[in-house]
Amino acid sequence: MRKLFHWPLDPASRLVRLVLAEKKLEFDLVTSPPWKPVEEVKRLYANPVGPVLIDQGQHGRVVANHTHAIIEFLEEQYPDIRVLPSLAPERAEARRLWRWVENRFEAEINGSILAERIAQAVQRTNVPDSTLLRRGAHSLRGVLTYLNALCEQHSYLTGRVLTVADLAAAANLSALDYFGDVSWDNVPDLRDWYARVKSRPCFRDLLKDSIVGTKPSPQYADLDF
Amino acid sequence: MRKLFHWPLDPASRLVRLVLAEKKLEFDLVTSPPWKPVEEVKRLYANPVGPVLIDQGQHGRVVANHTHAIIEFLEEQYPDIRVLPSLAPERAEARRLWRWVENRFEAEINGSILAERIAQAVQRTNVPDSTLLRRGAHSLRGVLTYLNALCEQHSYLTGRVLTVADLAAAANLSALDYFGDVSWDNVPDLRDWYARVKSRPCFRDLLKDSIVGTKPSPQYADLDF
Repeated sequence: MRKLFHWPLDPASRLVRLVLAEKKLEFDLVTSPPWKPVEEVKRLYANPVGPVLIDQGQHGRVVANHTHAIIEFLEEQYPDIRVLPSLAPERAEARRLWRWVENRFEAEINGSILAERIAQAVQRTNVPDSTLLRRGAHSLRGVLTYLNALCEQHSYLTGRVLTVADLAAAANLSALDYFGDVSWDNVPDLRDWYARVKSRPCFRDLLKDSIVGTKPSPQYADLDF
Repeated sequence: MRKLFHWPLDPASRLVRLVLAEKKLEFDLVTSPPWKPVEEVKRLYANPVGPVLIDQGQHGRVVANHTHAIIEFLEEQYPDIRVLPSLAPERAEARRLWRWVENRFEAEINGSILAERIAQAVQRTNVPDSTLLRRGAHSLRGVLTYLNALCEQHSYLTGRVLTVADLAAAANLSALDYFGDVSWDNVPDLRDWYARVKSRPCFRDLLKDSIVGTKPSPQYADLDF
């Protein structure tokens, strides 16, 4: 039995769904909005943040919360298909970039652009704060430029094979892309990379996501955007 | 050859020093201020954030940046003394709390209280912003209350043995304690826990830290505070 409590536009939840799908692990999805977690999650954690995985198997019942604990557990428990490279130097670089991507998006972009879009479209609590959106857009341009430079050098962000760092970047970008907030035109190598990642079978379910009251941007599910 | 680029009051650098010392791994320390990284670090990373470890051994030359990549590497490469529990459910909980502690301090406390103290005492760039300090102090009280509740239940944050989650919390609290910003009186169980963690040999070097132009608070190095 494997169950993931998630929220469709939460980038951390998206990353865990991508890793589970990449590893071909089946799971039940339960929607639990960050601002109103379901009872089962509230019983597990006083202040739940991000996705929660319950995995019942030969190893016992593992309850893991947030990307770091969940993905490192999945990588240790189900190593047949890996999202971390096997050699230590490459593992270190994939983990560095995974964490860098999550920290930058979380600190500078998701709290502004994504939170404003969600507040407006889903929670309907306010009109977008244009100063906040401008600040987020500025940070996003910096991150896109850096990631594009990495894609000029290799097929994937840390080298020739896909790692959790690619999935983390794609998960974060896909949530923004749902609202059409990524200017792909300025970052052609990153666009090619995203087209490759988005075409993987693990992405299929994410591209079907549709949140009540919103309509994804036209290129969101388009593999040839 | 093992070399750590760090800055003494950076909580992430402190955590890595604690883990290296807990594992009894020798290393050279090179000071690299976040606002002016040394050349060797700038050559490695375009935008360096946090500690950088260079570890040259039978596994080759591993360069790792930030706590997640560095500590997971050390745990895999040097498993004799572990900072993560061996069973999957406990590993998941230690990693959850480790990440939770780092995210909360980074997002709500270090950017306000710690950054203001450092700006004032070390960089001498401004006078403390009292609104920012108040907001940080409010968040810190919430975190202390939560951690104190965990210490009411067990000797260590996630159970009966020390894990990386304890070291992460202690690393962050120790940087604030340097400036006397932790009100231990209100959290007696957490104070007992901190006295236990602070008395470990791994903590010795941290308690000797003294930053030019600053004087640590009287209780900072006092094991019986």
